[in-house]
Amino acid sequence: MNPTPIDFWFDFSSPYSYLLNEKIDELAARYGRAVRRHPILLGIVFKATGSAPLTLQFAPKAAYSVHDFARSARFMGIAYRHPDKFPLATQNAARAFYWLAASDPAQAQAFTQACFRALFVDNRDISDSETLFEIAAQNGVDRKSLENALQDPAIKARLKEEVDQAPARGIFGAPYVVIDGEAFFGADRLPQIEQWLATGGF
Amino acid sequence: MNPTPIDFWFDFSSPYSYLLNEKIDELAARYGRAVRRHPILLGIVFKATGSAPLTLQFAPKAAYSVHDFARSARFMGIAYRHPDKFPLATQNAARAFYWLAASDPAQAQAFTQACFRALFVDNRDISDSETLFEIAAQNGVDRKSLENALQDPAIKARLKEEVDQAPARGIFGAPYVVIDGEAFFGADRLPQIEQWLATGGF
Repeated sequence: MNPTPIDFWFDFSSPYSYLLNEKIDELAARYGRAVRRHPILLGIVFKATGSAPLTLQFAPKAAYSVHDFARSARFMGIAYRHPDKFPLATQNAARAFYWLAASDPAQAQAFTQACFRALFVDNRDISDSETLFEIAAQNGVDRKSLENALQDPAIKARLKEEVDQAPARGIFGAPYVVIDGEAFFGADRLPQIEQWLATGGF
Repeated sequence: MNPTPIDFWFDFSSPYSYLLNEKIDELAARYGRAVRRHPILLGIVFKATGSAPLTLQFAPKAAYSVHDFARSARFMGIAYRHPDKFPLATQNAARAFYWLAASDPAQAQAFTQACFRALFVDNRDISDSETLFEIAAQNGVDRKSLENALQDPAIKARLKEEVDQAPARGIFGAPYVVIDGEAFFGADRLPQIEQWLATGGF
């Protein structure tokens, strides 16, 4: 394994982040890389950087985006159903991730995929704590421990630090991927990401 | 030829429009299609749709965009040098296009490519009338006729109509391509455009 992991910033409510998440681990592994995930809260990042969710912009742009989420998913061979509740709060999912990642990165990765698929395939409301506990339980996570973790000031601080630092790191949206200092924004940069991994730069 | 052309909206100062313009004719021809171009003025469209040029947004997003213009060009095998003067006014280039297109679409197409390359390869200021006349002359366009055309109220009205209608047509940025009613935004949708042309939809 190359010692430098691929850094991947995302929000659990970002459709294009879901699409990239479905592809990035297999791609990274093919080039001997690990993936280091950083869930953030795009609502706060957008306020800091003067942006807004695609679906809350000029109506035809919002409609195009919803259409493109599903079309891009089909193009990439990924299941997609636009959630009825959208956008939605993801701080609990992100906190659960950081708590899991501290002790078991593989479980955190499986939990990430399960949350994304719950939202973008099964139309489940991952902002609801009970739903999140169910998803976690299905991935072998103890409910009581997770309940405690979501109230842990250290876990809350961990997420807040990632969110606060994102704009200073140059992050203005998601998915946002950095490979050896080179930044790629958007699931549609996947072909360039692959080329970069294959050649070390172009 | 399929009787339905591909509609292609762009601004002469849009880097991703330049990248798409370098590829769209060959791609369209491969699937028996013509390309019908619609230069517009993104500054006015952005005002109507509540958007802004990428390079005038949050500083790290602007810097990323300039980096990505050149990187995407390299990835696509296209020459690119970010212009010193950017963004810049393109109403004269757009008016010249509509005047040429009315009588000779092939010449209008060649003029479009020449303007884009003058700006994005040779760092020339295509907002300057003299520069535009030189580019036109190199493409066999009579200077005096073009000078008159740029002052023609009918030509001005033609551009104004395209710009005014763009938001009502759902256009919020460029490049924006429509194939048989299906819209594609951005040069990074080129693989999806090709798939759509090849299969008739997916």
